[in-house]
Amino acid sequence: MLTANTIGKEFAVTFFGESHGKCVGAVVDGCPAGLPLTEQDIQKEIDKRIPSKKEIVSGRIEKDSVEILSGVFEGYTTGAPICTLVWNKEAIPTDYDAIRDLPRPGHADYAARVKYGGFNDYRGGGRFSGRITVAFVMAGAIAKKLLATLGVEVLAYTTAIGDVKMDKAPAIDEIHKNTYQNAVRCPDSKCAKAMEEAILRAKNEGDSLGGIVECTALNVPAGVGEPVFDALDADIAKILFTVPAVKGVEFGAGFRAASLKGSENNDPYIVDNGRVATLTNNAGGILGGLSNGMPINIRVAIKPTPSIRREQKTVNLSKMEENTIQIKGRHDPCIVPKAVPVIESAVAIVLADHLIRGGFIPKVLGRRQK
Amino acid sequence: MLTANTIGKEFAVTFFGESHGKCVGAVVDGCPAGLPLTEQDIQKEIDKRIPSKKEIVSGRIEKDSVEILSGVFEGYTTGAPICTLVWNKEAIPTDYDAIRDLPRPGHADYAARVKYGGFNDYRGGGRFSGRITVAFVMAGAIAKKLLATLGVEVLAYTTAIGDVKMDKAPAIDEIHKNTYQNAVRCPDSKCAKAMEEAILRAKNEGDSLGGIVECTALNVPAGVGEPVFDALDADIAKILFTVPAVKGVEFGAGFRAASLKGSENNDPYIVDNGRVATLTNNAGGILGGLSNGMPINIRVAIKPTPSIRREQKTVNLSKMEENTIQIKGRHDPCIVPKAVPVIESAVAIVLADHLIRGGFIPKVLGRRQK
Amino acid sequence: MLTANTIGKEFAVTFFGESHGKCVGAVVDGCPAGLPLTEQDIQKEIDKRIPSKKEIVSGRIEKDSVEILSGVFEGYTTGAPICTLVWNKEAIPTDYDAIRDLPRPGHADYAARVKYGGFNDYRGGGRFSGRITVAFVMAGAIAKKLLATLGVEVLAYTTAIGDVKMDKAPAIDEIHKNTYQNAVRCPDSKCAKAMEEAILRAKNEGDSLGGIVECTALNVPAGVGEPVFDALDADIAKILFTVPAVKGVEFGAGFRAASLKGSENNDPYIVDNGRVATLTNNAGGILGGLSNGMPINIRVAIKPTPSIRREQKTVNLSKMEENTIQIKGRHDPCIVPKAVPVIESAVAIVLADHLIRGGFIPKVLGRRQK
Amino acid sequence: MLTANTIGKEFAVTFFGESHGKCVGAVVDGCPAGLPLTEQDIQKEIDKRIPSKKEIVSGRIEKDSVEILSGVFEGYTTGAPICTLVWNKEAIPTDYDAIRDLPRPGHADYAARVKYGGFNDYRGGGRFSGRITVAFVMAGAIAKKLLATLGVEVLAYTTAIGDVKMDKAPAIDEIHKNTYQNAVRCPDSKCAKAMEEAILRAKNEGDSLGGIVECTALNVPAGVGEPVFDALDADIAKILFTVPAVKGVEFGAGFRAASLKGSENNDPYIVDNGRVATLTNNAGGILGGLSNGMPINIRVAIKPTPSIRREQKTVNLSKMEENTIQIKGRHDPCIVPKAVPVIESAVAIVLADHLIRGGFIPKVLGRRQK
Repeated sequence: MLTANTIGKEFAVTFFGESHGKCVGAVVDGCPAGLPLTEQDIQKEIDKRIPSKKEIVSGRIEKDSVEILSGVFEGYTTGAPICTLVWNKEAIPTDYDAIRDLPRPGHADYAARVKYGGFNDYRGGGRFSGRITVAFVMAGAIAKKLLATLGVEVLAYTTAIGDVKMDKAPAIDEIHKNTYQNAVRCPDSKCAKAMEEAILRAKNEGDSLGGIVECTALNVPAGVGEPVFDALDADIAKILFTVPAVKGVEFGAGFRAASLKGSENNDPYIVDNGRVATLTNNAGGILGGLSNGMPINIRVAIKPTPSIRREQKTVNLSKMEENTIQIKGRHDPCIVPKAVPVIESAVAIVLADHLIRGGFIPKVLGRRQK
Repeated sequence: MLTANTIGKEFAVTFFGESHGKCVGAVVDGCPAGLPLTEQDIQKEIDKRIPSKKEIVSGRIEKDSVEILSGVFEGYTTGAPICTLVWNKEAIPTDYDAIRDLPRPGHADYAARVKYGGFNDYRGGGRFSGRITVAFVMAGAIAKKLLATLGVEVLAYTTAIGDVKMDKAPAIDEIHKNTYQNAVRCPDSKCAKAMEEAILRAKNEGDSLGGIVECTALNVPAGVGEPVFDALDADIAKILFTVPAVKGVEFGAGFRAASLKGSENNDPYIVDNGRVATLTNNAGGILGGLSNGMPINIRVAIKPTPSIRREQKTVNLSKMEENTIQIKGRHDPCIVPKAVPVIESAVAIVLADHLIRGGFIPKVLGRRQK
Repeated sequence: MLTANTIGKEFAVTFFGESHGKCVGAVVDGCPAGLPLTEQDIQKEIDKRIPSKKEIVSGRIEKDSVEILSGVFEGYTTGAPICTLVWNKEAIPTDYDAIRDLPRPGHADYAARVKYGGFNDYRGGGRFSGRITVAFVMAGAIAKKLLATLGVEVLAYTTAIGDVKMDKAPAIDEIHKNTYQNAVRCPDSKCAKAMEEAILRAKNEGDSLGGIVECTALNVPAGVGEPVFDALDADIAKILFTVPAVKGVEFGAGFRAASLKGSENNDPYIVDNGRVATLTNNAGGILGGLSNGMPINIRVAIKPTPSIRREQKTVNLSKMEENTIQIKGRHDPCIVPKAVPVIESAVAIVLADHLIRGGFIPKVLGRRQK
Repeated sequence: MLTANTIGKEFAVTFFGESHGKCVGAVVDGCPAGLPLTEQDIQKEIDKRIPSKKEIVSGRIEKDSVEILSGVFEGYTTGAPICTLVWNKEAIPTDYDAIRDLPRPGHADYAARVKYGGFNDYRGGGRFSGRITVAFVMAGAIAKKLLATLGVEVLAYTTAIGDVKMDKAPAIDEIHKNTYQNAVRCPDSKCAKAMEEAILRAKNEGDSLGGIVECTALNVPAGVGEPVFDALDADIAKILFTVPAVKGVEFGAGFRAASLKGSENNDPYIVDNGRVATLTNNAGGILGGLSNGMPINIRVAIKPTPSIRREQKTVNLSKMEENTIQIKGRHDPCIVPKAVPVIESAVAIVLADHLIRGGFIPKVLGRRQK
């Protein structure tokens, strides 16, 4: 198990909690002392998970109210571990009795039962629930405040839902302006409307949709990352694959690079305003596991929500016979919108970790003035 | 830096060495005692990196001869760390004087110079060279022997080079039979021929190609992986992004899953020969970060070799002026074939680590008979 | 900072909380699934910290009531991280305003202020308070339940307070019977009385006393420990030095071994009831960082409580002038009795970690019966 | 096993090699780029292990000649892992056939056989041999060069051999001047002579002696250490207990503090030359796991060499019957002198690690001038 619920080496995050247990929590160890931090700073990030349109999400809407239990004193981080949590209020565990023996297709139910000898908290997926992602957002909120001290900004947004895709890359100001103006977190308002409709259509069919979330990190200095194994892209990919439903990650040209020629894919160096830059950014801002000073561009594939209303084939694990399951409970027809702040947070956590590791963010932010 | 050159928690691998230094080495810590191991076991994996056709690779062909320096006694691993290395014999460092100030587009040169204050060994990319991948293969050879004790097998192969793509998934026996029968490591012999031609064409144009490597792991039991953060897919993705030139990783349906419906993407459970299985395998054998007993299927995007003969734009970093570079040295027009055993090894390393972590492989393999 | 608040590799413990903050907590990651665990199991260990005689302790007596926030489901551990905490109720932060600029001799105040740029929560020592040791006891309670599945038992007890020392090693049944029958946790009842008197004498003089705690671990199988660096003694020593006020640790003959001859210090092997044992136990049960099957014997030196009523010299750090301080607040004239369950817990945590690492305790304890 | 052969988080050291295998090696990962480093820098530390009087050591005198295999380029560290090793030349493995079934009292033989299922390299203790300590010295040599960039100096020296003890603490200049002027590494020349005689006496009796090594670290700034778990004293104690034969570690007043009163043991703060200091140093320079700016003072108990010429009781493990053993091979009648540079190195490794962690030593030392 081996500290499997801790990630990061300098900005290290430990998660705990279950979907239908008492709470979901995150302990952040290694946040430099001297960062101004309030519960409101975290709350406003958590609120981004609350959907603006009830129709496109599950019946479960947690009005999560964050608490900071440790590590902050008189408005500043102290250098001690910061424990933050939200209490579960909307848990309705009885919804899940039916799935005890009937693993839901596309969920971790079966594998978890095997791994934990049946002792795992299976209610709502337990540790495997999307509910857990609130921990990413809590830790990510702290990470983002740290990044802001360097002017680094991380922006995630939806670029595809099912078959509906944005046809060109959005400008940064569109991302800023539009992403949270619609229910699907898409910077293209027109496209957003089509995405919402697609989700409602799938919902009406008792089905679900996936999509693509893209994420860009701006103003990351060159030289961030710790090759060979703690390469920046490697650490970003690792954390992204721990976000439920992620099935693919690519940087820059990504899979498209596989069919380019070297002369097309290489990004020529130029001098831009006295700084080294590249003309194109097929590398997505990362070469050899190190940032090169260009925007870091990441694409993430999110599978369709596995919980659907339609009847599905499964196996009764106690009897070892084939059976069917019709999932009740509450479930989103598309989790992509909720994944947007989670992915943003996950990337921010890795960047905070690496910026401290690289010495870009000091261990203490200034000296306390009385 | 933080043990950035070590990966794995139970089967932990530490790499050292440079492209044009004395050697490339790997220390494997945590290999169970009692595994039969000889230098020949490792050598035969290293030999897979030697190309069968000289035309499609660089002029540098290292006849690497592996040495085991520690951790093996009377033909068995002892439980102590195993240091293996190959000495560099073909290094021609003077080839690289020109690039000291002129970072090669698509390479880590610029970012590394920034990160290490110019102290990095820039010759041939130093630590960032593809040469380093021999360390993956040495450690991977040991991992594969461990996996074999459980009947687990990892198979990587090329499915695309540039625009030439296999049109359907190969059968396991085709992979076994054909992969190393051609220079591009493709299980489809006809496709392989077209791939070779594409590489030669690019080479003649002073250009390079990338491609897709796929990897499948067979007989992995259900329940392997350590969520939330040491999810099996997360750890596989992390190590794959540390392989030079990898720009994208996906599992099962991967990016394609983003446009499927839940009812299409979910893999229904069935009983197959008295065991739980799934009808389809869009999950690629991993759900919630845990193996589910199905084959683990991974696709990896490899960018075209950044070293090309054509003149490219770059910047003289000492003078901060734009300039051009024409790369001499030796370089492969396509590194995909060499990447195949590396990716296979990387996946094997992660699986060995997780199979020990999960208790599937014991800490000592039997008891020594005199 | 680097996960500095996490210890252990398989049974990994993360601490958070401050003396006068909201709570003190511990997250245990890596506890095998299937261990029966209730809040009462932990509560009874916490209660051991409550002194049986008010006179010999500080005015602050926390009636700590433990809560388990995660990782337990229907009475069993699930394999997910277990967060346990106690809320601080008796905190009187205003007691500590005086020490903001006046570091208390023998405390971490000065060094912490330097390290954290003055942002540390200095109230009652913050993270450096003995209050934190409740986290050891919570995690230790879980560790002890795990150890019990193998019949391993850890017993700590006081053998010296100031100049009052036990004159011979106690028998195991004396330890069992007497240790918690007196206020100083000494297995020798007569000696205990003299110790209590010594403490009261020091208290009346506005002074404090230290002492020696010994700890023995029974039934640890041979071969536990992970040399070279995760040697069993090394890991026990490390955790013990993180217990506030510990200044020395020795195993078996310890410092006395330095003046023995090899022929005196070596423990001859014998066959005892069909098992390998040693005639003497100068090694304290550990050789080469591995347990050898004999009882593990540890001695720990505890310094006198640094908080004393007497006026002491110090420096006003804002003005950089010499000054004096008279500590108010509540403080124990001797912390040795409270340290006993803490040291027992700390050793139990390390043993649980290493018994899992060595494969002696499995990752899942059985299979759940409905 | 879990990276059990790696220690340190920023300045991380991985050891490999066996007493009678090919070599003993150390990989240092995380050494900042830009440190001038040559093989001679390491060689001169290794030479400190070579005894100045043959009479008081074993017949095995390795003229170790260090090689740097990686991580250094044009005289400077590059930021990549530094692999250093010495080849074993004096190994005479056949000496050890007799001990295969007869574990030597006081050695790890029995426990290692149990742990590794008999697969361990038992020759000369294999991984458990004092031979391994050359790896500490190689890594320590690099650590010391790093420390020197801050003016931090670590000095170890012998203060007791058997019953012969220095009667007062040596002055720093005595340590500098005398320690390596005698065969026992004692700063008091007269005492050194008595120690040598004691060793020879024990040798003639076929017996062995232990002793005390003290170590002081000068100019360590205040605020070094990472509580709670990576406390500076905790990490120093951990590494010291991995040095073969260490049975006790104490800081400052150590075990003596247990019988002092708080008013005696507390070190009053003063202003000394405009800096905060303490009048006494019972804390040994560490409070709450943090350095306080005073010298760090450590005492280490070394047991007598377990290998002695006298016949000893043991058990034949194959037959499970009691037996005797008379150890042939080569062995030192007292390993304390050889332990001195090892302990110095071990402390230097921890300090280097913590000084990088605390941000006192930067990740890159300057910028390369061509």
